[in-house]
Amino acid sequence: MEISPAALEPRQMHKLIIGSVVPRPIAWVSTISAEGRTNLAPFSFFNGVCASPPTLSLSFSYNPERPDHKKDSLRNIEATGEFVINVAAEPQQETMHATSGDFDIQVSEIERFGLTTAPSVRVTPPRILESPIQFECRLLQIIPVGEGRGSATLVLGTVEHIHVDDHLIDDDYHIDIRALKPIGRLAGNSYCYVHEIFDLGPR
Amino acid sequence: MEISPAALEPRQMHKLIIGSVVPRPIAWVSTISAEGRTNLAPFSFFNGVCASPPTLSLSFSYNPERPDHKKDSLRNIEATGEFVINVAAEPQQETMHATSGDFDIQVSEIERFGLTTAPSVRVTPPRILESPIQFECRLLQIIPVGEGRGSATLVLGTVEHIHVDDHLIDDDYHIDIRALKPIGRLAGNSYCYVHEIFDLGPR
Repeated sequence: MEISPAALEPRQMHKLIIGSVVPRPIAWVSTISAEGRTNLAPFSFFNGVCASPPTLSLSFSYNPERPDHKKDSLRNIEATGEFVINVAAEPQQETMHATSGDFDIQVSEIERFGLTTAPSVRVTPPRILESPIQFECRLLQIIPVGEGRGSATLVLGTVEHIHVDDHLIDDDYHIDIRALKPIGRLAGNSYCYVHEIFDLGPR
Repeated sequence: MEISPAALEPRQMHKLIIGSVVPRPIAWVSTISAEGRTNLAPFSFFNGVCASPPTLSLSFSYNPERPDHKKDSLRNIEATGEFVINVAAEPQQETMHATSGDFDIQVSEIERFGLTTAPSVRVTPPRILESPIQFECRLLQIIPVGEGRGSATLVLGTVEHIHVDDHLIDDDYHIDIRALKPIGRLAGNSYCYVHEIFDLGPR
């Protein structure tokens, strides 16, 4: 099939991207508002950018449900310059997915789903102890892309501190992927396990 | 384990990020140089950004092997403003991985590995016919992050045309993930299959 994006509505293009750019890692993002309300939500337009400075990227899509058209997480990041990326793994899969629902701005998903928090070391938003790896991040750059429905705001964050469950990491900073048990994001309500791991190479 | 990034070397921080931000989608990027030489290489700091304009992101790490410290793909994108993201799936896994090796700038990985190309519709670099989905992209924005070893250049591209193998897509632009057979990138030389798919929800 030959597809010209100009002929597609934003929701059709979105479906095509989330079905083709797979599997995606999941950032379960905890933030705090200017008024001190916590928020927790998963995002999968998420990846690494580089190691020095240690940088991660997150894209927040246009939100028709709010007057300012922003996801609550993005509004909080803009207000405070801080966020925590909690890695979501198999034991958290149901709760993580549930926090992707559309909740009133007054609702803290952390309280609603009975998650356990701990203070962060370098930033104000709490980290989620159920998560096996937590990246404390400070806002580096905000990059708006497009306008209106289908647009997004790309956020770059610098990692200021990392917490890793002891059994997942060795002294040379190698992560044990089988012990981590990450899950990958696909389209719709679909996810994948990372059980069938294989090595290729040497190159 | 508590980790302060300031205490880590770039290669240690890189290992931590590629072990934690998993599984990652793979962009098998075809480009052409100002002199007309083709290049093909895989990158996994890759994701969607938004649907309108249809935008994808790619991060290219600092390359100590070249005088300008750029990956050949990045140099070509800067020179021409164009690239094709070919989705790499199971049938291409060995070849895709082989093209991640460090080849002389004179070598076209496309010719070296006997891949089949077809002309693109909207851009100059060819697309790889062995790949089931090909996104023709035009450079939207270049965002440098950091300097020296461990730094990167983040590239945003606008999708101008898409080719999808007919058996993978329906009239509503839904991609059949089981037929696509994507693979996910992990750390080192490791990858994962996307066979164990599950649904969560409704939210």
